[in-house]
Amino acid sequence: MERLSTGHGSGGRLTSELVSDIISSFGVSGLEQEDCAIPEKGLAVTIDGYTITPRVFPGGDIGKLAVCGSVNDLAVRGAEPRYLAMSLVAEEGLAKDELLSYMRSAGSVCAELSIELISGDTKIVPRGQVDGLFITTCALGKPLPERNIGADRLEAGDTLIVTTSIGRHGAAVAAARYNLSAGSLKSDCTPLWPLVKDILDIPGLHCMRDCTRGGMGTVLCEWAETASLGILFDENMVPIDPEVRSVCDILGFDPLYLACEGCAVIAVSPDDADETIHRLKKHDLARDATCIGRLTAENSGYVGMRTEAGGIRLVDMPVGEILPRIC
Amino acid sequence: MERLSTGHGSGGRLTSELVSDIISSFGVSGLEQEDCAIPEKGLAVTIDGYTITPRVFPGGDIGKLAVCGSVNDLAVRGAEPRYLAMSLVAEEGLAKDELLSYMRSAGSVCAELSIELISGDTKIVPRGQVDGLFITTCALGKPLPERNIGADRLEAGDTLIVTTSIGRHGAAVAAARYNLSAGSLKSDCTPLWPLVKDILDIPGLHCMRDCTRGGMGTVLCEWAETASLGILFDENMVPIDPEVRSVCDILGFDPLYLACEGCAVIAVSPDDADETIHRLKKHDLARDATCIGRLTAENSGYVGMRTEAGGIRLVDMPVGEILPRIC
Repeated sequence: MERLSTGHGSGGRLTSELVSDIISSFGVSGLEQEDCAIPEKGLAVTIDGYTITPRVFPGGDIGKLAVCGSVNDLAVRGAEPRYLAMSLVAEEGLAKDELLSYMRSAGSVCAELSIELISGDTKIVPRGQVDGLFITTCALGKPLPERNIGADRLEAGDTLIVTTSIGRHGAAVAAARYNLSAGSLKSDCTPLWPLVKDILDIPGLHCMRDCTRGGMGTVLCEWAETASLGILFDENMVPIDPEVRSVCDILGFDPLYLACEGCAVIAVSPDDADETIHRLKKHDLARDATCIGRLTAENSGYVGMRTEAGGIRLVDMPVGEILPRIC
Repeated sequence: MERLSTGHGSGGRLTSELVSDIISSFGVSGLEQEDCAIPEKGLAVTIDGYTITPRVFPGGDIGKLAVCGSVNDLAVRGAEPRYLAMSLVAEEGLAKDELLSYMRSAGSVCAELSIELISGDTKIVPRGQVDGLFITTCALGKPLPERNIGADRLEAGDTLIVTTSIGRHGAAVAAARYNLSAGSLKSDCTPLWPLVKDILDIPGLHCMRDCTRGGMGTVLCEWAETASLGILFDENMVPIDPEVRSVCDILGFDPLYLACEGCAVIAVSPDDADETIHRLKKHDLARDATCIGRLTAENSGYVGMRTEAGGIRLVDMPVGEILPRIC
């Protein structure tokens, strides 16, 4: 009998398999392979559950994370976040003030983006039946009319842009969890909409994805598979903070697969790449935005990284979970 | 320092207080006191988390419950359920086949109502960090145009109708949990939309609510408070199955506060009460539909029950949790 392992929730290969099985048991076939659904004109929807240890980390807490994570899934499909529904499962004994402090964090992101909290649910379960607090948020937004941004727009030749240095959320949480000193390292947890809305009218903007569970590496693998294209990028060009490298060196992580919570990968036609980067760089959040590589017609389904040494390393989806309970 | 207790999640008085504190910390004031939100024309939204012990019970399982619970919150505001977003938090070690069986149950309710699953999330947490499985569903639907059904329509003189015998979900789950033999007792867990859609054009239909956590008693208390009206109903008229009475007698529960998952209370102008009951009774699900009492201008904020003995008992919101992890 197959039992679930934490790797089934990592965002990598095992997750893909489990999700396919869930979908086929449910009996639905039309679910899109995107960060959010656009089931009808004018409506974008996404849902995500959040569980993180520790619940407060450098750069944020579970409340901020639970809003940013879901509204970023709307933003990368070009949808303006408008409404939030939130469900809490808290453990008996959790300090009420702690819960309320996460609500303040969540509310302040919503206020910044003019998002209304429209529906909520609170369950308290007996001690030992949940570890502290789980938050689920469903974010609703307005997609741009007449504008399709998604994996079906990916084209051979598209330039790949990453908006900021990768892996900061995963590294900051790992450092906090294992009491590593990591200097000024903070999670990148932040809403992407203010950044994204400034590039939505670029005609060659084809697809965006925020790199959460599974990191940038997983996003690229999914794109290569979904679009039946190859991807080639330069290790040298991928922005990685020295603190993130240190945490990865100590814990044996690959930064390519570390979670981000305020970093997007963007595929844009090569003619529009400079303009895209120019606009992104106007935002503090994306001052390290850079081209890292491109989509190719050859090597369909594969992602290759040209290493500093000059070879090409095959980048595959992670199979297990490198760091559980991170977002 | 105040700590959360399971009573904070019971749907009663402590829940109301906690929810007010959450809302004020979040910084939102416009949240409606309704089962679902209608934030703009054409859109109804509700979110709910589900955790139940045992996960399979007579009449249903957590998968069926997680769909019925949320789509019923749409139905009672006159909104046709259309889309579902679902987030799972499962414990490492849960059998994959068990999870998939719940997905089949959930999917079959969706198929019956032509609801599309549009967004999902799956998290697997390390053993001991969640008790088995939590499911959160966010249901989206289409409210009737130009038709307001809600607590702001409640009027003195309205007749109160209950659609079926109360407390069956709570009693069936309690019986299963404590290994009581309860004859043919089953949870009433079922979607209300097929029933509700047949009465939506009745002009005097003012408000509906499904009786979930906190049971019928809590719904009536909330109505009396929200509408600043009194409520008087007859104990004799409230349909209660003998098996539910037995479970209540053994465990010391009051059926008024036991959860239902396929039972609604309806407030309708007295002229339309007979027609409403006539239409409801055409459905198997509501063949026991009956008038139980009325809203009054006097005794504002209070709910009274005329007992079999002829006195009037004050019905108050339950303060603690009578049975945790029930829906």
